Amino acid sequence: MRFTVLTLFPELIEQGFSTSITGRAAEKGLLSLRCVNIRDYALDRYGHVDDYPYGGGAGMVMQAPPIYRAYEAAVGDGKKPRLIYVTPQGRVFDQKLATELAKEEELYILCGHYEGVDERILEEIATDRISIGDYVLTGGELPALVIMDAVSRMVPGVLSNEESGEDESFMNGLLEYPQYTRPEVFLDRPVPEILKSGHHANIARWRRNESLKRTKKVRPELLEQADLDKADRKFLSELEREEESENQ
Amino acid sequence: MRFTVLTLFPELIEQGFSTSITGRAAEKGLLSLRCVNIRDYALDRYGHVDDYPYGGGAGMVMQAPPIYRAYEAAVGDGKKPRLIYVTPQGRVFDQKLATELAKEEELYILCGHYEGVDERILEEIATDRISIGDYVLTGGELPALVIMDAVSRMVPGVLSNEESGEDESFMNGLLEYPQYTRPEVFLDRPVPEILKSGHHANIARWRRNESLKRTKKVRPELLEQADLDKADRKFLSELEREEESENQ
Repeated sequence: MRFTVLTLFPELIEQGFSTSITGRAAEKGLLSLRCVNIRDYALDRYGHVDDYPYGGGAGMVMQAPPIYRAYEAAVGDGKKPRLIYVTPQGRVFDQKLATELAKEEELYILCGHYEGVDERILEEIATDRISIGDYVLTGGELPALVIMDAVSRMVPGVLSNEESGEDESFMNGLLEYPQYTRPEVFLDRPVPEILKSGHHANIARWRRNESLKRTKKVRPELLEQADLDKADRKFLSELEREEESENQ
Repeated sequence: MRFTVLTLFPELIEQGFSTSITGRAAEKGLLSLRCVNIRDYALDRYGHVDDYPYGGGAGMVMQAPPIYRAYEAAVGDGKKPRLIYVTPQGRVFDQKLATELAKEEELYILCGHYEGVDERILEEIATDRISIGDYVLTGGELPALVIMDAVSRMVPGVLSNEESGEDESFMNGLLEYPQYTRPEVFLDRPVPEILKSGHHANIARWRRNESLKRTKKVRPELLEQADLDKADRKFLSELEREEESENQ
């Protein structure tokens, strides 16, 4: 998987990429990163890459031509790559989309700044518009790093076998159960007895129930989409009965 | 606003913080950052901070005592601070929560790694569990930077007057309209005529309609919560009629 990032802050992307799991995978040759500094393709010698918006309003808008020149230099004579523009105005990023993007051999990411970028460059080069969540950030660099991290984890070989088990538990649509490790007692709080029982089936059921409990409490809307079996539904209705009797 | 981040990767936090708008605000004295390296509070001289999970399963879990020691050293004799644990098992971060958090004078953020952290330390010190989205990342550092960036933008004085206008348009619950800047024609694509008309009311209506159109297309669920007036509803029903006749 080869990432090409068009950005005004290549150092931030390079540093973030090298610190995370992506850096380890890059050393193994599984991933590579290329940053293209849009400012190097400015139209004037002052390095201007933004201008006032047509129609007025606050802030500055990134101009199309410098981005297009940076893009053309990076693509060369190649075919049109998949290019993600990170923006709150996009499709919401999730684990399914991360898994889908991990199948690409090459991904371009365009990081915006200021009030956004000229719509026409997006129409020209962006194949995807992706939002990492419903909040406003200063620029596209942190979202680009988030997307690269989540996608890289799904590229075969990036995670060790030990690490990769966890994904299933997220992919089942429920929040994960609580975890405990040594010491056995921390500030008078003991580890739940069942986790020390060695009884695998009981532990699995307890963890599943804790996942259900937590999901119901924090993100009840996820339960509608989750893959639930008969035992899950039974546990959830018992939970509801308990809550009702507590409220009375 | 003072941020304290408990992390295994203080360099990543410090670099990310200094590059973004948060760095500029820190220079102005509006924000400050303190990173505490959890590894400095490991229980053994090898710097171990994780161990196998009770009950089995893939991955390693961060132990409670090193985190607690790091936390106690940072808090000193102070009162219990607001401490965010960043985790996919949390409340979903959004602009409203960013605005709320920006009112705090001090925020602590705990970054997890591996399979998560021992539940008991979270029960002890975490006041909030926050998720930046439904995807799995290697660690809590990128989400911590995302939260700090979004929160810092809402701290009075961090954004210049020119920049801060944009927030209203996100806060109204719709996606933003497209932006255009010079040149007037880019790759045969002209700027929409209306934006050059100088007629402010018409421009505002056109932008509002573009916001509605985009929201309906990309994030229709947002329309249910958005603050819509009579003209908005009229435009949306016209849009639906147009789509229907196109589909026939």
